[in-house]
Amino acid sequence: MTPSSAPPQAGQSEFDRGTAVTAVPAAPGRYAAQLHGGWRIGGGINGGLLLALAGRALSAELRPHRDPFSITAHYLSASLPGPAEIRTEVLKRGRTLSTATAAVVQTDQAGSERERLRALATYGELDALDGEVRTTAEPPRLPAPEQCISSTHAPAEFRARADLLERLDLRLDPSCVGWALGRPSGRGVIQGWLRLADGHEPDPLMLLFAVDALPPTTFDRGLPGWTPTLELTVHVRARPAKGWLRVRHETKNHAGGLLEEDAVIWDESGRLVAQSRQLAKTPTP
Amino acid sequence: MTPSSAPPQAGQSEFDRGTAVTAVPAAPGRYAAQLHGGWRIGGGINGGLLLALAGRALSAELRPHRDPFSITAHYLSASLPGPAEIRTEVLKRGRTLSTATAAVVQTDQAGSERERLRALATYGELDALDGEVRTTAEPPRLPAPEQCISSTHAPAEFRARADLLERLDLRLDPSCVGWALGRPSGRGVIQGWLRLADGHEPDPLMLLFAVDALPPTTFDRGLPGWTPTLELTVHVRARPAKGWLRVRHETKNHAGGLLEEDAVIWDESGRLVAQSRQLAKTPTP
Repeated sequence: MTPSSAPPQAGQSEFDRGTAVTAVPAAPGRYAAQLHGGWRIGGGINGGLLLALAGRALSAELRPHRDPFSITAHYLSASLPGPAEIRTEVLKRGRTLSTATAAVVQTDQAGSERERLRALATYGELDALDGEVRTTAEPPRLPAPEQCISSTHAPAEFRARADLLERLDLRLDPSCVGWALGRPSGRGVIQGWLRLADGHEPDPLMLLFAVDALPPTTFDRGLPGWTPTLELTVHVRARPAKGWLRVRHETKNHAGGLLEEDAVIWDESGRLVAQSRQLAKTPTP
Repeated sequence: MTPSSAPPQAGQSEFDRGTAVTAVPAAPGRYAAQLHGGWRIGGGINGGLLLALAGRALSAELRPHRDPFSITAHYLSASLPGPAEIRTEVLKRGRTLSTATAAVVQTDQAGSERERLRALATYGELDALDGEVRTTAEPPRLPAPEQCISSTHAPAEFRARADLLERLDLRLDPSCVGWALGRPSGRGVIQGWLRLADGHEPDPLMLLFAVDALPPTTFDRGLPGWTPTLELTVHVRARPAKGWLRVRHETKNHAGGLLEEDAVIWDESGRLVAQSRQLAKTPTP
């Protein structure tokens, strides 16, 4: 079940650069960032990447509580490539946990500030948790990565609107890619192996991105188009081991033009490392 | 499967009074409230009741978007009976959706303000959603309410620390109550029928309370003690029909002293009306 590890690390990763933040001098709690077009999907920057960006600012602000235990973002407007500022507010600094908010703000062409997302999160130190695990959860059953379908084989018109696929080594379970050939399974499941294309190993902040990096489950239901995320919540349950991540997305309830998308991520050591749920809009034909 | 409806409504319910808010004059976005001891569980006021309180202030502030589509709260300190203020901040007023934050604040005996929780939510109008439902979710399978175990039969020492049980008509599935007799099933599941003891019918804000009103799943794992909620997120997916609510709580992953608790609520019409997840601390023996 456990394939070999990813290539060794080679300095700072594309993901680290794509979510880099710099403290703004003389402005406590504020961080500057650049949103890169290479993380676009559909009309804007990927929501998981933005969550990881806000998450990195919070990690800096809440030191030594550097790991997101639970983080929620509500998406307010589409983010565009260019400068952004992350404004944090610390609500509580506790002994083992700290809680804060973060707003990602961009300035539009007319000079008006536009809030892109608001996040609310509780941070701690994953390595300080005790090692006990009692779980009845089971990892997604996947064919080996070499038997899965690489996203490099995605249809050209899909890749053209999904720059972020270039950043990923994504191998989808063949049972979940029928939609690419006009034969969706109808189950509402998308699952596969994921790692960063540049070989950088996963870490807790990368998991915030990984829960939103696969094609939407609506494709597997035969619904083309994009599913804008209204809200995304991620629980990071353990620091991920090196190597491939097993990611499964599932939607059960489409109702009234909205759907939930649940994701789980397991690492190569066979540990459940993240759980997430988002509320999104059903694509309009 | 569908039992008869609850008794007819009789004016304002205990739940409505317990979550009532009043706009503070000349203080835009601020609401005053009284936290009642009758909603205590363990050492403080029940977390779901507090979420519903913040939710009611947001419902007033975001009119005509009065229904919580997605709401998250992070709990910062234990709430006590007495006065509280809910401070809202609107982040976006859209055509069909609005997003805002709410802080529940109390003043301690020394005169210092203590934030109890911070919420972040997106509201809309459930009745304005289109009626399409495509779901693969299945309602919890429960014996009829009269074959379930009423919470009025809970152990006395449990009831003594759970005033809120007096507010509920809760009938637990007999397969989930072995813990009360020292024989927990070990599955991590608690499910049953729920309605308000005073016969008031469910509404969207009541669902915010209902997702956190059952005994914790840790009891069914044989872990006594309270499980403090760090974070709770609720998606309200439809306005509930009159009558009983079917509520199922399940925990799969205990790890590092933390656990997720997922809840689903189905109404008497057989519709999935709410999904929630919380991150909580494992009880310390």
